[in-house]
Amino acid sequence: MIEKVFRDPVHNYIHVENQVIYDLINTKEFQRLRRIKQLGTSGYTFHGGEHSRFSHCLGAYEIARRITQIFDEKYQDDWDHHESLLVMVTALLHDVGHGAYSHTFERLFDTDHEEITRQIITSPETEINQVLRQLAPDFPEKVASVINHTYPNKQVVQLISSQIDVDRMDYLLRDSYFTGASYGQFDLTRILRVIRPVAQGIAFKRNGMHAVEDYVLSRYQMYMQVYFHPASRAMEVLLQNLLKRAKFLYPDHKAYFATSSPNLLPFFEKKVELQDYLALDDGVMNTYFQVWMTSPDTILADLAQRFINRKVFKSIIFSEKNEKNLDLMRDLVAQVGFDPDYYTAIHRNFDLPYDFYRPEVKRPRTQIEIIQKDNHLAELSSLSPLVESLAGTRHGDNRFYFPKEMLTDTSIFSQQNQAFKAHIRNDHFIYGE
Amino acid sequence: MIEKVFRDPVHNYIHVENQVIYDLINTKEFQRLRRIKQLGTSGYTFHGGEHSRFSHCLGAYEIARRITQIFDEKYQDDWDHHESLLVMVTALLHDVGHGAYSHTFERLFDTDHEEITRQIITSPETEINQVLRQLAPDFPEKVASVINHTYPNKQVVQLISSQIDVDRMDYLLRDSYFTGASYGQFDLTRILRVIRPVAQGIAFKRNGMHAVEDYVLSRYQMYMQVYFHPASRAMEVLLQNLLKRAKFLYPDHKAYFATSSPNLLPFFEKKVELQDYLALDDGVMNTYFQVWMTSPDTILADLAQRFINRKVFKSIIFSEKNEKNLDLMRDLVAQVGFDPDYYTAIHRNFDLPYDFYRPEVKRPRTQIEIIQKDNHLAELSSLSPLVESLAGTRHGDNRFYFPKEMLTDTSIFSQQNQAFKAHIRNDHFIYGE
Amino acid sequence: MIEKVFRDPVHNYIHVENQVIYDLINTKEFQRLRRIKQLGTSGYTFHGGEHSRFSHCLGAYEIARRITQIFDEKYQDDWDHHESLLVMVTALLHDVGHGAYSHTFERLFDTDHEEITRQIITSPETEINQVLRQLAPDFPEKVASVINHTYPNKQVVQLISSQIDVDRMDYLLRDSYFTGASYGQFDLTRILRVIRPVAQGIAFKRNGMHAVEDYVLSRYQMYMQVYFHPASRAMEVLLQNLLKRAKFLYPDHKAYFATSSPNLLPFFEKKVELQDYLALDDGVMNTYFQVWMTSPDTILADLAQRFINRKVFKSIIFSEKNEKNLDLMRDLVAQVGFDPDYYTAIHRNFDLPYDFYRPEVKRPRTQIEIIQKDNHLAELSSLSPLVESLAGTRHGDNRFYFPKEMLTDTSIFSQQNQAFKAHIRNDHFIYGE
Amino acid sequence: MIEKVFRDPVHNYIHVENQVIYDLINTKEFQRLRRIKQLGTSGYTFHGGEHSRFSHCLGAYEIARRITQIFDEKYQDDWDHHESLLVMVTALLHDVGHGAYSHTFERLFDTDHEEITRQIITSPETEINQVLRQLAPDFPEKVASVINHTYPNKQVVQLISSQIDVDRMDYLLRDSYFTGASYGQFDLTRILRVIRPVAQGIAFKRNGMHAVEDYVLSRYQMYMQVYFHPASRAMEVLLQNLLKRAKFLYPDHKAYFATSSPNLLPFFEKKVELQDYLALDDGVMNTYFQVWMTSPDTILADLAQRFINRKVFKSIIFSEKNEKNLDLMRDLVAQVGFDPDYYTAIHRNFDLPYDFYRPEVKRPRTQIEIIQKDNHLAELSSLSPLVESLAGTRHGDNRFYFPKEMLTDTSIFSQQNQAFKAHIRNDHFIYGE
Repeated sequence: MIEKVFRDPVHNYIHVENQVIYDLINTKEFQRLRRIKQLGTSGYTFHGGEHSRFSHCLGAYEIARRITQIFDEKYQDDWDHHESLLVMVTALLHDVGHGAYSHTFERLFDTDHEEITRQIITSPETEINQVLRQLAPDFPEKVASVINHTYPNKQVVQLISSQIDVDRMDYLLRDSYFTGASYGQFDLTRILRVIRPVAQGIAFKRNGMHAVEDYVLSRYQMYMQVYFHPASRAMEVLLQNLLKRAKFLYPDHKAYFATSSPNLLPFFEKKVELQDYLALDDGVMNTYFQVWMTSPDTILADLAQRFINRKVFKSIIFSEKNEKNLDLMRDLVAQVGFDPDYYTAIHRNFDLPYDFYRPEVKRPRTQIEIIQKDNHLAELSSLSPLVESLAGTRHGDNRFYFPKEMLTDTSIFSQQNQAFKAHIRNDHFIYGE
Repeated sequence: MIEKVFRDPVHNYIHVENQVIYDLINTKEFQRLRRIKQLGTSGYTFHGGEHSRFSHCLGAYEIARRITQIFDEKYQDDWDHHESLLVMVTALLHDVGHGAYSHTFERLFDTDHEEITRQIITSPETEINQVLRQLAPDFPEKVASVINHTYPNKQVVQLISSQIDVDRMDYLLRDSYFTGASYGQFDLTRILRVIRPVAQGIAFKRNGMHAVEDYVLSRYQMYMQVYFHPASRAMEVLLQNLLKRAKFLYPDHKAYFATSSPNLLPFFEKKVELQDYLALDDGVMNTYFQVWMTSPDTILADLAQRFINRKVFKSIIFSEKNEKNLDLMRDLVAQVGFDPDYYTAIHRNFDLPYDFYRPEVKRPRTQIEIIQKDNHLAELSSLSPLVESLAGTRHGDNRFYFPKEMLTDTSIFSQQNQAFKAHIRNDHFIYGE
Repeated sequence: MIEKVFRDPVHNYIHVENQVIYDLINTKEFQRLRRIKQLGTSGYTFHGGEHSRFSHCLGAYEIARRITQIFDEKYQDDWDHHESLLVMVTALLHDVGHGAYSHTFERLFDTDHEEITRQIITSPETEINQVLRQLAPDFPEKVASVINHTYPNKQVVQLISSQIDVDRMDYLLRDSYFTGASYGQFDLTRILRVIRPVAQGIAFKRNGMHAVEDYVLSRYQMYMQVYFHPASRAMEVLLQNLLKRAKFLYPDHKAYFATSSPNLLPFFEKKVELQDYLALDDGVMNTYFQVWMTSPDTILADLAQRFINRKVFKSIIFSEKNEKNLDLMRDLVAQVGFDPDYYTAIHRNFDLPYDFYRPEVKRPRTQIEIIQKDNHLAELSSLSPLVESLAGTRHGDNRFYFPKEMLTDTSIFSQQNQAFKAHIRNDHFIYGE
Repeated sequence: MIEKVFRDPVHNYIHVENQVIYDLINTKEFQRLRRIKQLGTSGYTFHGGEHSRFSHCLGAYEIARRITQIFDEKYQDDWDHHESLLVMVTALLHDVGHGAYSHTFERLFDTDHEEITRQIITSPETEINQVLRQLAPDFPEKVASVINHTYPNKQVVQLISSQIDVDRMDYLLRDSYFTGASYGQFDLTRILRVIRPVAQGIAFKRNGMHAVEDYVLSRYQMYMQVYFHPASRAMEVLLQNLLKRAKFLYPDHKAYFATSSPNLLPFFEKKVELQDYLALDDGVMNTYFQVWMTSPDTILADLAQRFINRKVFKSIIFSEKNEKNLDLMRDLVAQVGFDPDYYTAIHRNFDLPYDFYRPEVKRPRTQIEIIQKDNHLAELSSLSPLVESLAGTRHGDNRFYFPKEMLTDTSIFSQQNQAFKAHIRNDHFIYGE
């Protein structure tokens, strides 16, 4: 086929040299990713972060293409070039099962975007499956097994999913570019120069160690400053409480929801088919929320308009040992007239920026390996004091969310407002501390 | 108030130092702009170009803030600092009346986003109007008159709307950044250093002439390469034919559209209130199109799925004198089984990149003025041979769109396919040339 | 050999995969380029533009490497891969004969950096020649013939020297990056994607036409705004008059110059060997000028300190037909006490940004060719109205330089100052106009 | 005065709004900085890093200008606006005493660039002093006292010299930009938004803490990857041994050095005046080294050509406890025929990336303070786990340098070569480990 290119602000160009990649991009399941934002509610905090999962998946594919091209050219002894297409295809499709506001939605409706991804790839009803089967009857299952981490070739699995994989490399660069939060930038060109296949999987040459270190730092900084931003989590919390309210109301108001939000019915009824899932996207969800804004249920209507019009909750940090005292705050929220079940929430965000392999833990990490001059491998944190300081430590915070009205001093509830604020200092819940 | 900032990848930070600006941003009419893409269908060609009108409006405001801050500090004799807030507010709100896929939608449903903008600003029912009235009872009308070009102070009008205004400066930089088409970049910092108020309006100091020249070139290049891209126009053409089909079907299928696309009814019925208009956004429209994909009308269903799944038409360039011969092509399209009314279209895109003031034409341009060392003004194209070469000349092309199927060689219609292709060379319609 | 890389801010990395390239970089003749600034006196105007010819030559090589790699991989039918090394070597060495402040120096001492380049390559005494001969005995001559434009393969010659060659592409990007004058940026990645060998030489695919057009514009803008900047030319003029004075003094003060500036003697004596030329660099020249600052000849001393301490002349633009009247200005300069032979100068800078092939002119240009969809070639300006407007037209100006003191109003010479200034308006010489 | 601007690739423009700043830039002592490279020998490793101290000093001034402008506008209560000019002047002049290859030169000739800086500022013979005295007779002394850290206003002192000052902020950004080592980038705009004067000095608002953290990381990474690069230190080592040899030879060869390197005589004689120091720059030094390349002393000649032609020594890392065993290596070097006094060297590079205030140490650091929401100050590392991991720990390495010839396998000395290499693994000296 004639090479196709897509202009991309992050990688300059996405090169498509293989018909099957081009056909996959043109399937309706892949095009659907244009209608799902990569960053979910973060776009409400970083207004530039409005890019879709479509562009991220293209970007992950492009990194996979560049890596496998290098492997094919330079490392024929350690790399089976027949795996290259599998890596590219899996990179392209790794997120195809994501839905609208996945993280929140999954918690409420018990779905799992990784499971959906596998279904889209292996179910004969999808266009994606049809394209893949043209390659080989078992190609869909191979792709699914890479996503599952069960594919025997560890090199392939690690390129798609490890502590430094094509997915993460693209999303850090991309989210950084679009939000304008420059912390996520790292030297991809350098990493491409030093990445190589080794017997056990993927490793990096010693002279690129600093680029890998910088990648780990960038990842940490993006989590702390973008992904865990309190205002984005406030939108998640609103969304979660809104959907919780809808679920609560549904049994007694089925007709209302059948009209106002038909595509959600299978989820309320817990009878979800793949096509039901694919029929949801950001636009569909927001359309429903806009209808709910006029619902006779005041809580549903109010939460919907808060979400649509971005009237976010405020939050404070609390320590785990002090969590028990939050009932005090919920009581005050209730006294002011807000149902704490729908107008408060706890949101926990923690990340383990990096870890070496610990066989004793539940899901041990594949550690990042550096190739020494004498060809022995050394684990990254053994060489980098900075990474060592991050290894094995979870970072993040617990936040308690509540209506902004609790902080304004109104004449009617000034007593509760005062009491509420007295328990806060420097954005921390200090009662009992 | 405490200064607020918004992280912005184009301007680094958007600074809000004025409570009224902050309140305007938080109105529901302004937040709605988050749900409308700046570039309409261009995002289907340049996948990075998914940013919303929300971010562009913030950006235009930020440029206005920087310019008026400079004017307030450095040009007290030539600039009335009471106008600064008016400029910032108008810059923020200048596009607030844009709707989903405005350009196509307006042609089909006879709406006008500039008129809607004025209504949103002046109608007492909007939150925006309420915020503005707090400044002064006549402030909404003042803002509207700037947008109307009837405001007496020409400096204010030109900052908002002229051949080099805050709107254009932001969208060139922004669209360029997000699409990755680097041609739109120019030296905003330099332009901010040399822009100044003069008796007749706005002018630029001689030592920044090259930055202004570069801006004109950037604008030209963005039009030729991004805004007029044939694939984006192919999506516009699909959308236009889809909505045309819906309008055609509506009178006999009112119940279907009442269920599938309730918010469009006022437009089909030509009884549109402001709130009807505000209830439409990209997500709502796409939600409706997804429902239409299962319509019993095969043309409606097919065009809807082509739009949603990005199955674009192909196109050729034709010259105006040869337009009459296109019926030949439409006939061939019809022979293959496509209704030419819905499966072909003509799309014309022309731009006048720059012009000096020509009193004799209908809407004469405000020319760009350069301040010489002796303080006389000189019109830009008199100093720049490059701009002179663009001045007064329209650039663009006429394209004829048709289904991609016309170019593939099928066994059934190979005769028509051959005939069709015989009239095309180098993407031009050559019959009769 | 093991691949070596050089970190480069313009191309990210310079890749060296070939031992001969690495050996050439390590020769003393090539290392000498570190001591010669790429931009000569422009660094006195754009303080960031202090990069050396060393980095430009590496950059030109890197572009050559990328292009030939693409040609080797994709265009085996139209490109002889044996030529790739020749292209890379010539790109690396194309400027190796440049000396300190070449343009001015050559005019004064009748040397020619292109001729020196050929000598360095072909003379058996140089390390460069020794490295090249290891490839083949006639390799040095081949390289020299490419630089001479006499090498039979036109593809090779055009890659090194044409209106869009590796030299120009690198220096535009590089000078733009280091000076901070962003106008020189263009889309190199795109150009690399569309450049290809054709029977007659080098051409560019139609879908990259806009990138080529943008390159031509960038080149034009860099000439107008950076290379022709009046302040840089003022430094050139100072340098020229300073060396002119030294040449004038030399016959009667040989001992002084033998001590103060030994390496210049061969040039004063017009007995120049290759090694004499190689012994001069920016640092050596500036060291001599610093010694001359204490010369007993007041003109030599004063011009030397003006150059070293950047006390530039001022200038005005004059039209060719008005040039005869400049004697009037020279007279006024003389009346104030400055010898016009050393304290005034005329500097002409004109560039022909682009031209198509004109067989009738002395050195016809190789025109830029665009490959149409039907594989016919079309000359660039026939497709691009912007380039058409630049084609065949020389741009630049004539400037008359004089001491800044002429513009200040001193009590002693106020009459002459007034008269001088009366002939200037908006930086133009207006007497007689 | 009319505002002047200098195009700068790092800060876009340097703005000069004050005549005294403009006059200082135009003094001969400041213009001299154009002839001294900011990065010394690092430019031999990172070829883009050829920028001068001139551009760095302008950059430090520009940051000082932006900060004091903000302080003047926003913090009148906590900032004395009369100090702003002092800050800008000191920022501009803080490095004016740097000489050619300062770090190496100072060690050999016992000079001190900080002391010279003070002399240039306070000595009545300099143009800089004359400009400063026009402001106030004691202004030169005030500037010197800021550089001395004895000026009473701690805010002023900390802006010029602390763990986050205008000097460091500019050099990280600038060295990163010119070398292309992207690690040095951080968010200056953000830091400018959150920096503010407090009673005890300078502090940063809580909402910019991550930008400050990122600055500390950037600084660490630039030290590890650019400033401590083994190849640049190899050039320093060459230079040091070369000058050591010249000092050794001088007493018996005074006439040779009087002719070949006149400006070094005062240093050999240890009778240095300020003007002697100012007469040295990179170009003068390199000119002398080029003359020395033909010296009859083979060691001087060889080291000079190795430096000029960049024939660097190789190096290995050794641990302090193993340093005593290096004599073994020196012996092998001697056996091959190299004088170990001039052909080997030890180079130690360690940096303390950040530390909080420790009253017990000799030169305690001024810690970086973060302003909490309740206005209390918190030391940076108490809030940032990443900075905490760097605080108080020195990073770097000890390296032993030797001729590259020791690693090549020659027939004559193969026994020594083998023995030498047997003590090295992964670039570490392993004998005795």
